[in-house]
Amino acid sequence: MTQPERPFDLLNKEIGQTILIRLKGSLQIRGKLTSFDIHMNLVLQDAEELEEGELKSKVGTLLLRGGNIIYISPV
Amino acid sequence: MTQPERPFDLLNKEIGQTILIRLKGSLQIRGKLTSFDIHMNLVLQDAEELEEGELKSKVGTLLLRGGNIIYISPV
Amino acid sequence: MTQPERPFDLLNKEIGQTILIRLKGSLQIRGKLTSFDIHMNLVLQDAEELEEGELKSKVGTLLLRGGNIIYISPV
Amino acid sequence: MTQPERPFDLLNKEIGQTILIRLKGSLQIRGKLTSFDIHMNLVLQDAEELEEGELKSKVGTLLLRGGNIIYISPV
Amino acid sequence: MTQPERPFDLLNKEIGQTILIRLKGSLQIRGKLTSFDIHMNLVLQDAEELEEGELKSKVGTLLLRGGNIIYISPV
Amino acid sequence: MTQPERPFDLLNKEIGQTILIRLKGSLQIRGKLTSFDIHMNLVLQDAEELEEGELKSKVGTLLLRGGNIIYISPV
Amino acid sequence: MTQPERPFDLLNKEIGQTILIRLKGSLQIRGKLTSFDIHMNLVLQDAEELEEGELKSKVGTLLLRGGNIIYISPV
Repeated sequence: MTQPERPFDLLNKEIGQTILIRLKGSLQIRGKLTSFDIHMNLVLQDAEELEEGELKSKVGTLLLRGGNIIYISPV
Repeated sequence: MTQPERPFDLLNKEIGQTILIRLKGSLQIRGKLTSFDIHMNLVLQDAEELEEGELKSKVGTLLLRGGNIIYISPV
Repeated sequence: MTQPERPFDLLNKEIGQTILIRLKGSLQIRGKLTSFDIHMNLVLQDAEELEEGELKSKVGTLLLRGGNIIYISPV
Repeated sequence: MTQPERPFDLLNKEIGQTILIRLKGSLQIRGKLTSFDIHMNLVLQDAEELEEGELKSKVGTLLLRGGNIIYISPV
Repeated sequence: MTQPERPFDLLNKEIGQTILIRLKGSLQIRGKLTSFDIHMNLVLQDAEELEEGELKSKVGTLLLRGGNIIYISPV
Repeated sequence: MTQPERPFDLLNKEIGQTILIRLKGSLQIRGKLTSFDIHMNLVLQDAEELEEGELKSKVGTLLLRGGNIIYISPV
Repeated sequence: MTQPERPFDLLNKEIGQTILIRLKGSLQIRGKLTSFDIHMNLVLQDAEELEEGELKSKVGTLLLRGGNIIYISPV
């Protein structure tokens, strides 16, 4: 019998891939996922800030706190 | 004697079905439920953002944090 | 000696009955209570959204997160 | 040696009495206290909503979540 | 060797004394401290609401939830 | 081998010294640190409220809840 | 077999380096990381407040509560 899939399995599959994160407020972050933990804290590389889908600034590497995330989506 | 039903049983029944999620703020998400956990974190496929019931954008797969959910409804 | 009554006893009595839920913000939900858990997560059937007491939309079945509830009242 | 009094002792004394509850935002609730738990969830009977001290609507019985309470006062 | 003093020691010393509490938002409460617990829930007697330092209304006895407190000051 | 330093070590060193605390919202508090606990609850003496760096009022002794703090800085 | 990397490993590598912290609201803090704990509380040296990327004030040493952080980025 196989274990049912769980939401964090999606993050495991996305390691090394580019993801888009929508935060509370209007801010979005796009970058390559390097690591995550059980609080949904994420490290991203080549990260960029977007607002309303438009590039606002390039940030590079960043550690994002999970508590501000609305959703995470592979791009 | 049967166990009384519990709220998460509804999520179990909706795996593979399309659900509508109303979030804090005016955002709604509609998509096919793939997995969930005890924090009500959800993975959806073919997900779409709606605002006031109108399609705003197609997102595809997404991992939604449970903490921002007001309610979940089968569609 | 009888146990003193506790707030959740009210929810137990209301299973199968119509209740009105006032949420943070101006939203109210009315529906028939099917199940609940210790976080006050509720499943409702024939649920409707109200605003300022007026019907806004019919939702059907829904799973409501307890964290957004201000109060629950039998109707 | 007597135990020092604790804040929840006040709720114990007010069972069956009318209390006024000030909530976050401008809403106040007045009603007869029936039961409470350690989260300060309360059941009230003959409850009324007030705003700025004026009667807004009669609600009857209600289960109020403790998390929205600013203070509780005997009347 | 003496134990270092801790913040709650201040509340112990203020039992029976008048204190001023500044809450989130613009509300302040002044009253005589009767009891407190580890969540900083307080019972006050002869309590008054103030706004911008001016008396707004007399409340009498009240149970104040700790979660809304910014600071407590002896007066 | 020495233990790595931790953020609360800064508070230990500042006991008896004047610190500036920036709170959520525009409020700042300046005063002499007397005690603290693991929730970052602080007792200050000769405390003053500031707004935009200007003295607003003298409060004297106060117990500040840690949950509203953005940062603490020695002055 | 090596342990997978985790988000807090980034903080370990940045000890002694300058980092930029974006907080809830419009405030940003830039400074040299001295220490951190599991709540993402940080001590910074030579810290500066920025708003919209422009220097607002020099703060010096500060202890920043983790709960207000959106992200941390090496500069």
